Amino acid sequence: MNAIARLLKPRSVAVIGASADPAKTAGRPVSYLLKHDFGGAIYPVNPKVPQIGGLACYPDVASLPETPDVGIVLLGAERAHLAVRELAQRGAAAAIVLASGYTETGEQGARRQQELMEAAGAMRILGPNTIGLVNLTDNIVLSASGALEMDDFPKGAIGVVSQSGGILGSLLSRAAARGIGLSKLVSTSNEVDLELADFIDALVDDEATRVIALYVEAVRDPGKFRTAALKAARAGKPIVAFKIGRSEAGAKAAVSHTGALAGTDRMYDALFRQTGVIRAQSFSDLLDIPAALATGRRLRGHRVAVLTSTGGAGTLVSDSLGMSGFETPAPDAETAAALRALQTGDHAALDRNPIDVTLAGLQPDLLRGAIKALLASPGYDALAIIVGSSGVAMPELMAHAIRDCLPLSDKPVIAYVSPHAPEAASLLTRVGVPAFAAAESCTAALDGMLRAARWSEPLTQEAPPSVSVDSLPSGSLDEAQAKQLFTRFGVRSAREIVVRTPEEARRAAQTLGGRVVLKILSGEITHKSDVGGVAINLTPELIGPRLGAMADEVETRTGVRPQGFLVQEMVSGGTELILGMHRDPLGTAILLGMGGITAELFNDTTMRLLPLQGGLGREEALGMARELKTWPLLDGFRGRPKADVDALAEAIVAFSRMVAQLGDRLVEAEINPVFVLPEGQGVRAADGVVVLR
Amino acid sequence: MNAIARLLKPRSVAVIGASADPAKTAGRPVSYLLKHDFGGAIYPVNPKVPQIGGLACYPDVASLPETPDVGIVLLGAERAHLAVRELAQRGAAAAIVLASGYTETGEQGARRQQELMEAAGAMRILGPNTIGLVNLTDNIVLSASGALEMDDFPKGAIGVVSQSGGILGSLLSRAAARGIGLSKLVSTSNEVDLELADFIDALVDDEATRVIALYVEAVRDPGKFRTAALKAARAGKPIVAFKIGRSEAGAKAAVSHTGALAGTDRMYDALFRQTGVIRAQSFSDLLDIPAALATGRRLRGHRVAVLTSTGGAGTLVSDSLGMSGFETPAPDAETAAALRALQTGDHAALDRNPIDVTLAGLQPDLLRGAIKALLASPGYDALAIIVGSSGVAMPELMAHAIRDCLPLSDKPVIAYVSPHAPEAASLLTRVGVPAFAAAESCTAALDGMLRAARWSEPLTQEAPPSVSVDSLPSGSLDEAQAKQLFTRFGVRSAREIVVRTPEEARRAAQTLGGRVVLKILSGEITHKSDVGGVAINLTPELIGPRLGAMADEVETRTGVRPQGFLVQEMVSGGTELILGMHRDPLGTAILLGMGGITAELFNDTTMRLLPLQGGLGREEALGMARELKTWPLLDGFRGRPKADVDALAEAIVAFSRMVAQLGDRLVEAEINPVFVLPEGQGVRAADGVVVLR
Repeated sequence: MNAIARLLKPRSVAVIGASADPAKTAGRPVSYLLKHDFGGAIYPVNPKVPQIGGLACYPDVASLPETPDVGIVLLGAERAHLAVRELAQRGAAAAIVLASGYTETGEQGARRQQELMEAAGAMRILGPNTIGLVNLTDNIVLSASGALEMDDFPKGAIGVVSQSGGILGSLLSRAAARGIGLSKLVSTSNEVDLELADFIDALVDDEATRVIALYVEAVRDPGKFRTAALKAARAGKPIVAFKIGRSEAGAKAAVSHTGALAGTDRMYDALFRQTGVIRAQSFSDLLDIPAALATGRRLRGHRVAVLTSTGGAGTLVSDSLGMSGFETPAPDAETAAALRALQTGDHAALDRNPIDVTLAGLQPDLLRGAIKALLASPGYDALAIIVGSSGVAMPELMAHAIRDCLPLSDKPVIAYVSPHAPEAASLLTRVGVPAFAAAESCTAALDGMLRAARWSEPLTQEAPPSVSVDSLPSGSLDEAQAKQLFTRFGVRSAREIVVRTPEEARRAAQTLGGRVVLKILSGEITHKSDVGGVAINLTPELIGPRLGAMADEVETRTGVRPQGFLVQEMVSGGTELILGMHRDPLGTAILLGMGGITAELFNDTTMRLLPLQGGLGREEALGMARELKTWPLLDGFRGRPKADVDALAEAIVAFSRMVAQLGDRLVEAEINPVFVLPEGQGVRAADGVVVLR
Repeated sequence: MNAIARLLKPRSVAVIGASADPAKTAGRPVSYLLKHDFGGAIYPVNPKVPQIGGLACYPDVASLPETPDVGIVLLGAERAHLAVRELAQRGAAAAIVLASGYTETGEQGARRQQELMEAAGAMRILGPNTIGLVNLTDNIVLSASGALEMDDFPKGAIGVVSQSGGILGSLLSRAAARGIGLSKLVSTSNEVDLELADFIDALVDDEATRVIALYVEAVRDPGKFRTAALKAARAGKPIVAFKIGRSEAGAKAAVSHTGALAGTDRMYDALFRQTGVIRAQSFSDLLDIPAALATGRRLRGHRVAVLTSTGGAGTLVSDSLGMSGFETPAPDAETAAALRALQTGDHAALDRNPIDVTLAGLQPDLLRGAIKALLASPGYDALAIIVGSSGVAMPELMAHAIRDCLPLSDKPVIAYVSPHAPEAASLLTRVGVPAFAAAESCTAALDGMLRAARWSEPLTQEAPPSVSVDSLPSGSLDEAQAKQLFTRFGVRSAREIVVRTPEEARRAAQTLGGRVVLKILSGEITHKSDVGGVAINLTPELIGPRLGAMADEVETRTGVRPQGFLVQEMVSGGTELILGMHRDPLGTAILLGMGGITAELFNDTTMRLLPLQGGLGREEALGMARELKTWPLLDGFRGRPKADVDALAEAIVAFSRMVAQLGDRLVEAEINPVFVLPEGQGVRAADGVVVLR
């Protein structure tokens, strides 16, 4: 057994700094170990007390009769490292350090945290500032969480890792009240050593765990997280993550243009999407979605049968489902006939959806018959059962009738409980029908199931043929150099000619033919049009005088007279996009955005993190384009010509290869705009920025 | 006392069709009247039984010893009208009809409903298909709702009107479990007579009710609803409404262009916004927001102090608040000093927000001190207190400490309860601190309070000077006629000249000067550009030949050779909008939308219902423009010139006057596009459609 496995399932636990008063925080761990029937050895360590809770108490770690697998350190931040050192010397697998007062409190705390790490040496540490961990599968509670005052917890298949200790307690008590079974809960908090990814990895290996729920404040090691999350996805153990810090990202602390469009929180969207992690939109979703996934049932489509005995609540659920793209179609002819055959009263509306069995639905036989017919119907992918106050009056009859039907199909069956009836909801959940008190929870649960079923691992681009970039200068490239670089990697640019004089400009315009664009050529001035450095729609006759006027205006505005100019063909008939990169602590991402001021107002961009090796795959690139809210503009909306989306995908792949190969040399890179021409005509990079170090 | 007042507070109740078995639905009303201590006379009516629940039972209504104020009719749809007739003949104020099987089930049901109305005559009817009403203020329960099995309900200031009976039961039981006090609950259901607006009106007059919560399926009489809702707003009794049917509206059943953009559900947005009704976004909000409003406390701004003893949950709440535009600033210097003075441990972080008092916060004195300091701080408009598992362990100490501070200020104080702790939450709510189990509920509650505090009644336009419209033809106006009509009401159009020949076109282009637009003139063809009937950017030299070519192309495409053309100045430098109308069962609305294909993809439109008399007021018109997501395009975004928003507002007011004055004669009207020029330059209607009957 490795250290993490020993930490999750120790045979012996030392509790250093244990108090004999179970009302005190330091008294809780021993008290909870006993209360929840820990099967192994418990060694309270406290020099001032002879025994605690009937257990012999030891003056120090050295005096323990055996090496404990785990030590729970309850001492304050001033002395915790001393206990950690003793545990490490004794050979314990891991120490759980509850004390706060480390990096989260400033400099002195950071020094303490360093001291703690040094004291641990090779021994693993959970925390500090953690509330500990709970292994419900094996009745092992190594925690001071007040939630453990509860007597009983349903065991189940959901493993929880939380970067907040308080949240761990909240999830534990909320899940218990709702009949949602958990397997393991770990609070990682300061993550001086063991962190999110370590426990994702361990939970994938844990037989009892089938779904993993994460409460995330920050992913400290994105590479490790990606590896662990992909391992979970490949093992068919879905991860659901709730991440806070969404609104700070909303505050656009704009550094560069694309940086402003793509806040850090959106990088988490990309990270989660690319690793198969289902992002919970609310804290409630963090139990709702795993509760549904833990049933192991499989959602294959969007069509939901809503079976109800109370009209209003049925509509409420249908309405919420409809807002997220689910459909609630009426039963097909065969199903409707099967339902009508069950009918006893005359007011039940069995051939619509919601399928309203009125009060007759409270006869278990009718309920069973209706559920069977709906599960068997090829017209439905899932069943949502609405429980009204009448159903709540006889919860066991109802729950057992539903439970009996579950083996007939692996389609999801969920319940919405309309009145306040936590016991009925808990009972339903425990028999395998996740029950919710909010229509939005039903929708989130089914949506999460669909995401889990439909996810497939993105293919990454094979290691691309290396492009020679040795000759590249450092600093800002001018526009022509930037576009040459894009071209080298396979992104086609608009045709262009560098000129210095009016006469050269005239000849260039003639060479290019048609109308042309004239731009100043500068590695320093990135917003050329702001200083009068761009003119469009020029003929060979007009361009010469225009060049002189432009040079004058730019000089007046910037104090520098431009020496070089670019004459470029006018690109028309295309859709304007932005292709860029974004780099932040989570990694480097490729950004695709719709061009134009209106799309910018709507922040219509999408991102993909670069794979750990190589560039983006073609399907991922296509997926980015399809994710844009303005995707219809590329897809023939309102009679527009379809855009060359294949070429766009190739351009994204090529750009991503460039970003991957240049790695840290690349400070900034953006093609803005890139025109996507009609089908068959490719793309054209029309302007761009590259900054190298 | 009028009939509705007698219905809500009867001195005597007849229960027709009462069953002696309290387990049956027909047995419940008498059983519940007794259980919940009705103080008046109860008359069960059932010819087959001598007594029910110890009360004498009567064979029919005629035999009752007095005229009952209210009759609860429990008979089925086949016989309910008979009882209703007897009650009407006897002079009862109202009948409550529970039977289903009326219009909701088809034709036969509709006939029954007609029969029921005729039987009632002047007597009022609640229902049919209602679950009845509950007057908690006076211990009067006239309902068969299973929720009344509960023994006790907190009385309070929230009146509920629901168009679904099942939902009434759900709200009743959920509110009770959460300690949220209600005053009256009415289920109106089929609304054959009494409807939403009647009870809004009655609840405004009800002393016990300070907030009104509505569960809406459809507003059947929008005029009456507007009158009642405005009465509530003027009385300072906020209405919170949850309306279902949102996703059907999302399905764009497009009739006309603007019809497609403006689904019916959005008309409810307009209706609610204009009458001060706060729209609940989720069913949960329908209790959360009223619970906050019922405290009578007042939110004056966006700045919230989050006081916590558990870090994770504090961040959760701050994050949710931040996503809805609330701020959680750090304490100002004076407040921070006051907080530090309370400090006992060394780890508490009292000078940030969330203000983390750690475990020390569980000392009631410290809690009191912190709350006082935060309520007194000019830097905060509200206080959110986070209750962790430690706080839950001592709910009364905590609740009473908070309660003691409430009189010091009228700023809102709410609580978020992190662990599962319904009793603690209920206790807090009952002492005046609405407590929530979801961060989103905290945000919704504060958001609702802010909306209530900031609402002011829209000023309507004084009865406008009447414009002569007698000479208008019926049917589709051509573009020139349509724009003349807009001009008559005060919306300026682009300069234009009607022509028939190439030579006339040339002269018109010369007269207008600069580049011009050429369009076919037709009352039938509304999408001129689809048939080649629009050419832009023409000079006097080009326009003559272009006219002939256009006539040819249109003839080829439509089979009809256009006879008239419009030569119009090119409008440039403006922002393109759509100004239209939308009419549906809720009334007639003015619609403003951003022009351009991208804005259309984002469905960037807003609507206002016409006032009951006159046109829209100027402030409302300005409010429409500011509500557009692309409002920054009009407001100088990225160095664009500011648009002439004053002129736009005047154009909206003028257009709304036209719609108001033409009334039912107007089938369709739209200015598309209307260009808003830079400040001081006004607007130009550049194309338009008018259809008259």
